Amino acid sequence: MNQFSKEYLVVAQNASGRNMKVPLYRFKGSKPGPKVYIQSSIHGAEVQGNVVIYHLIQTLKELPISGEITLVPNCNPVGTNIKAGEYTLGRFDPINGTNWNRGYYFDPQLVNQFAETVDEQESQASIKSRFRDAMKAQIDNRLNSTWGLGLAQQLNLKLQQLAFDADIVIDLHNGPVSTRHIYVPEYAKASASLFNIPHVILIPNVFAGALDEATFCHWWTLQEKLSSKYQKPVAFDVEAFTLEMGSQEVISFDEGKYDAVSILSYLNAKGCLVDADYQPKNMLRVAVTLDNYKILYTQQGGIVDYLAPPGSRVKQGEALARILNVDELENERATETIKAPCDLIPILHFPSASVLSGTQLYKCFTHYVTLTAGA
Amino acid sequence: MNQFSKEYLVVAQNASGRNMKVPLYRFKGSKPGPKVYIQSSIHGAEVQGNVVIYHLIQTLKELPISGEITLVPNCNPVGTNIKAGEYTLGRFDPINGTNWNRGYYFDPQLVNQFAETVDEQESQASIKSRFRDAMKAQIDNRLNSTWGLGLAQQLNLKLQQLAFDADIVIDLHNGPVSTRHIYVPEYAKASASLFNIPHVILIPNVFAGALDEATFCHWWTLQEKLSSKYQKPVAFDVEAFTLEMGSQEVISFDEGKYDAVSILSYLNAKGCLVDADYQPKNMLRVAVTLDNYKILYTQQGGIVDYLAPPGSRVKQGEALARILNVDELENERATETIKAPCDLIPILHFPSASVLSGTQLYKCFTHYVTLTAGA
Amino acid sequence: MNQFSKEYLVVAQNASGRNMKVPLYRFKGSKPGPKVYIQSSIHGAEVQGNVVIYHLIQTLKELPISGEITLVPNCNPVGTNIKAGEYTLGRFDPINGTNWNRGYYFDPQLVNQFAETVDEQESQASIKSRFRDAMKAQIDNRLNSTWGLGLAQQLNLKLQQLAFDADIVIDLHNGPVSTRHIYVPEYAKASASLFNIPHVILIPNVFAGALDEATFCHWWTLQEKLSSKYQKPVAFDVEAFTLEMGSQEVISFDEGKYDAVSILSYLNAKGCLVDADYQPKNMLRVAVTLDNYKILYTQQGGIVDYLAPPGSRVKQGEALARILNVDELENERATETIKAPCDLIPILHFPSASVLSGTQLYKCFTHYVTLTAGA
Amino acid sequence: MNQFSKEYLVVAQNASGRNMKVPLYRFKGSKPGPKVYIQSSIHGAEVQGNVVIYHLIQTLKELPISGEITLVPNCNPVGTNIKAGEYTLGRFDPINGTNWNRGYYFDPQLVNQFAETVDEQESQASIKSRFRDAMKAQIDNRLNSTWGLGLAQQLNLKLQQLAFDADIVIDLHNGPVSTRHIYVPEYAKASASLFNIPHVILIPNVFAGALDEATFCHWWTLQEKLSSKYQKPVAFDVEAFTLEMGSQEVISFDEGKYDAVSILSYLNAKGCLVDADYQPKNMLRVAVTLDNYKILYTQQGGIVDYLAPPGSRVKQGEALARILNVDELENERATETIKAPCDLIPILHFPSASVLSGTQLYKCFTHYVTLTAGA
Repeated sequence: MNQFSKEYLVVAQNASGRNMKVPLYRFKGSKPGPKVYIQSSIHGAEVQGNVVIYHLIQTLKELPISGEITLVPNCNPVGTNIKAGEYTLGRFDPINGTNWNRGYYFDPQLVNQFAETVDEQESQASIKSRFRDAMKAQIDNRLNSTWGLGLAQQLNLKLQQLAFDADIVIDLHNGPVSTRHIYVPEYAKASASLFNIPHVILIPNVFAGALDEATFCHWWTLQEKLSSKYQKPVAFDVEAFTLEMGSQEVISFDEGKYDAVSILSYLNAKGCLVDADYQPKNMLRVAVTLDNYKILYTQQGGIVDYLAPPGSRVKQGEALARILNVDELENERATETIKAPCDLIPILHFPSASVLSGTQLYKCFTHYVTLTAGA
Repeated sequence: MNQFSKEYLVVAQNASGRNMKVPLYRFKGSKPGPKVYIQSSIHGAEVQGNVVIYHLIQTLKELPISGEITLVPNCNPVGTNIKAGEYTLGRFDPINGTNWNRGYYFDPQLVNQFAETVDEQESQASIKSRFRDAMKAQIDNRLNSTWGLGLAQQLNLKLQQLAFDADIVIDLHNGPVSTRHIYVPEYAKASASLFNIPHVILIPNVFAGALDEATFCHWWTLQEKLSSKYQKPVAFDVEAFTLEMGSQEVISFDEGKYDAVSILSYLNAKGCLVDADYQPKNMLRVAVTLDNYKILYTQQGGIVDYLAPPGSRVKQGEALARILNVDELENERATETIKAPCDLIPILHFPSASVLSGTQLYKCFTHYVTLTAGA
Repeated sequence: MNQFSKEYLVVAQNASGRNMKVPLYRFKGSKPGPKVYIQSSIHGAEVQGNVVIYHLIQTLKELPISGEITLVPNCNPVGTNIKAGEYTLGRFDPINGTNWNRGYYFDPQLVNQFAETVDEQESQASIKSRFRDAMKAQIDNRLNSTWGLGLAQQLNLKLQQLAFDADIVIDLHNGPVSTRHIYVPEYAKASASLFNIPHVILIPNVFAGALDEATFCHWWTLQEKLSSKYQKPVAFDVEAFTLEMGSQEVISFDEGKYDAVSILSYLNAKGCLVDADYQPKNMLRVAVTLDNYKILYTQQGGIVDYLAPPGSRVKQGEALARILNVDELENERATETIKAPCDLIPILHFPSASVLSGTQLYKCFTHYVTLTAGA
Repeated sequence: MNQFSKEYLVVAQNASGRNMKVPLYRFKGSKPGPKVYIQSSIHGAEVQGNVVIYHLIQTLKELPISGEITLVPNCNPVGTNIKAGEYTLGRFDPINGTNWNRGYYFDPQLVNQFAETVDEQESQASIKSRFRDAMKAQIDNRLNSTWGLGLAQQLNLKLQQLAFDADIVIDLHNGPVSTRHIYVPEYAKASASLFNIPHVILIPNVFAGALDEATFCHWWTLQEKLSSKYQKPVAFDVEAFTLEMGSQEVISFDEGKYDAVSILSYLNAKGCLVDADYQPKNMLRVAVTLDNYKILYTQQGGIVDYLAPPGSRVKQGEALARILNVDELENERATETIKAPCDLIPILHFPSASVLSGTQLYKCFTHYVTLTAGA
């Protein structure tokens, strides 16, 4: 059976001077295989991933694996515990507004320099091992700099040191009010059909600060360097995903089982499980490129009835939302209808009816295509 | 037809020195009748009442009334506009924690003194008119005191001056995640069946700061004084209610129509409408006394799956909620089930999965009874 | 020498399910004497008391005491750790607005019932011991009630169980921007001159929820009951104070030494120290009754220059503050001066220049008198 | 005399659907001259700039100018009005954490394209006028895009459209607890000595989102393009500065006069005033390049006594701050001293004693040099 261990990583100290720590659950199979890293709740209000990890752990207590799986629930103990009113102010550091998911490290210079040190004869295993060491040394440097680092960045770098060891990185998130969707790097498009997630966003090799990018941008860039240097395809088989599993601020043990099974289907296809029969569902999946994943902002302030539920199909000109204007209730300006600027699928919407102008009302798939398994 | 007017009441100034104002919509019937006062959103995140008022205004543009109806949507422009994260921090003043619905005025001394001035021969109309004047003079005194008053209290008193003129006061609220319920003073129990609301809380003549209490406690106390003084029943036919119409942070135009019709049924029964056919629905209504409306607090912190939906019937010992403990995911302490301490109906629950110890998890009806129309 | 011990009291669990605990530092003298309880930072942003306790501990490591001194710094680990922007939102529970210093327990019924059980022959020591047991049993009941308790109340009651054992209770606070002042129960007025604090507020036997009141109201009420029952003065020599030692959000080790010495002077006079020479300073102290400690609220919103520093003497009509109105900068309404409504000493003012209408601008001593030592 | 006008710019709508607007005060001289744009309080808690503008307006009512001066106090009515606790949460949008001073527009592509259209014969006036039109058209495009824009960006772009017309842009800020300092683009280093500000940060032609950069990066880039294209120096004489005038959350009319005079000295030197005798003070000014303006982050959480006041000179190894650890008060870990990693001048420090690990404790000048007037 798998070998299990649990330990804690200190990621911060609070204003009482006390350590804030993150639990690391580890399962090691008796056979070799990929290393997997799964974390949840880097945004403190996005708690459903903790339930998914709970279900994964129940399964992994019984199911033999190849390789190693590290699970890190509640990976941001600061964000989880910032309440403002009844809700959790967990998307950003309440002190300075820094998004908790934007302080990971990516340095194309480092990749370039490292690529110089690779010899055509070097084995893939050796390259991966050396590159991981180089990265971790860099992160160590930053963590130990004389002048220190900001809280979000410290947290991110400590998690990244764990994650960069893995061949598969899965970061579990939720949207505000949201349907299931997944961010997939374009080179790993085929893997999108291994999850039971109907909405897929394909992202390019551009770093915007998140953990999935901080993982795959390094390997992707290194692949491209070496492929071009040796004029032959080089692939490191490292994949990283951000899974958005529904809405923030709620958990459901039932829904969590669905997502655990979805992840197990992917892991099975990747050779992480031994004699398991988890298979991806036969289902409709649609995909967009990142530039076709659009944010619709409000032009006006007011109180919103969100008419189009996440995951529905909306035609150009159909109503997305209806805004109430409390100062004009007796006349025709009492309500205003916001219409879809083109055919789209709303993926998520703002979680409060009360909005100022310039609020992210909806995020939408536009120009989406059906994804064919194995494409 | 009804005569319509709209004006604005300045209730505060913001930190830019600008007036914050509340819209007053007024319909005056051509025939005499009761005065009605309806306000919404004293708690800034409880926005559905604004939609109900929207529907009421649409109806009142067409439907002749007796007497006068004043509608005050968005009656707390401060609370509505305090965002903290994506949600609205609208239940209390973000500066000092003062609940926006606890600064209304009630002074039993004033009632006693006023009762002394009433003569057995004085007409009810005269007593009501003089009592209203006395109250408004008191409120004026407070609003104009040399040392000033706190923001919440200023807001409350300015609204109370409008409301105290009315024979019927309806304060529109929402719960966190909630089913419909209504607070009814015990003496007006018969009116509970005139609304289409399945859950009724009967409250005694005790002032806890809210608008409904600030209205009926005065009249109830005066009634009791005079009844006892003259040894005969005295009744002023003033009623006040707090309606909780579902969950905060969301609006629905469809649901709002239901509640508008419910209020119109009550108003019709009270003689406010002319030739209208709004009738209360034939439905099951259950009631509790206030001391049987219980709050269940958490003993532990963690992440909660709310298993019992608001409005459901739960037997003693059945599961209400299941809490995830992120530090114990591999063992039997991974989850804990919170059970109903007695037979109950959960009416509302906390709106976030993430809770500290001592959180109001559920508010529940216990020892509830079926309400018979006309009882 | 004194015997020292340290332990931790769990007062809450956070949303990660982790215990939040409070350190208890205890010094026990070799001789008998009063029991002393000192806590700090029940309001999370009022942190200077922690420094005072630091200095007291340094002294008590060397200075022999009679009796026992318990010191509880950082007694509210929830409040201390709620940041909102750069500041600490520590005065109230960010979830529901509950002031962290208003959930202590006082039940005049319990006192009355207990008074019935006292016999004229019973020794003071026996009465005190039995009364403490009765109180702690009551608090235990509440802490263990089936339906649970709110977070602030749980925290308060757990601290109160510790504090109620003491003969001397000192609760260390800070004002917003503030000069030193102290709340003293009227019956202990003579003790006011034993601290080196220039401003004294004398408070009556009325419970408003704070720890000092929750302590002395019980003993004071019991004294009065028994004095009246036996027609002779009964005194339990229990005293409780709230010390406000300057401004919130800052600490100073130098200022903390001053306040530590001030407390040691009081403790020395009360027989808590052995062979110590701490004496109260010869200084001017002024006092007001609680009803003469006035709050001045703003009538307008705007940006405030606080002209009168805390602790200064201001004559009626002199300027307290000047408010800027950003919409009228070119005309004579650009600024407005707020004047003292009577002769007064500003004790504290609001800590931000930006105010809405209805803000607590200043708290002021009016009709103050000079306090004579030993009066 | 100058011609005065006042108008309002709508920059947002709040959740009540009401317009939030910014006052524009304009003085037009009878003679031609530079256009000046001065705004304050883009960060809502940094309010002292409003006082400076108040003093400038008092002066400009009497003092003839050449050209035009537009003053925009309270330029962020959203940020000014977000209270969280007693303080103002004004540095970032409370909904999503977006810094209010990072959404201005800079597009090097646009500059490159525009440079192509410039002919060697074109007059500077014509180039400037055409470039301004091109920029404003771009900003218009963005403000009117189908999918809308975020609130902070809308606010920033509306202000930038006003500011881009000016030859001189001054953005008035405050630090947390801070001494006076100013950000100056390297090419305008000579102007640093025209203000009465002792600490100068010289910044390169790199855009990080702020208004000063959004102004000078465009002109600087264009200058460089054209200088290189025509192989001769081209200069547009546009300057932009961020002035940090002391601490946030407070105003002082006296201090504001000092800064108004400082700005008038600069404007006088730039030919904006007619027959005025405002001269820069003869004072010590020190400067650093941006990379030598260092942030010192805490490694630990705790309660901080800030020992080194902003503006003081601190030698390597000297104490900057002392942190109290409430769990170790009886032993040698009770306090920890944070020392200067090199010779430095602390410019500002965190405004609260309570800090988590990873807090920006101090920002410091290192490797600073004395600035010689006219250098």
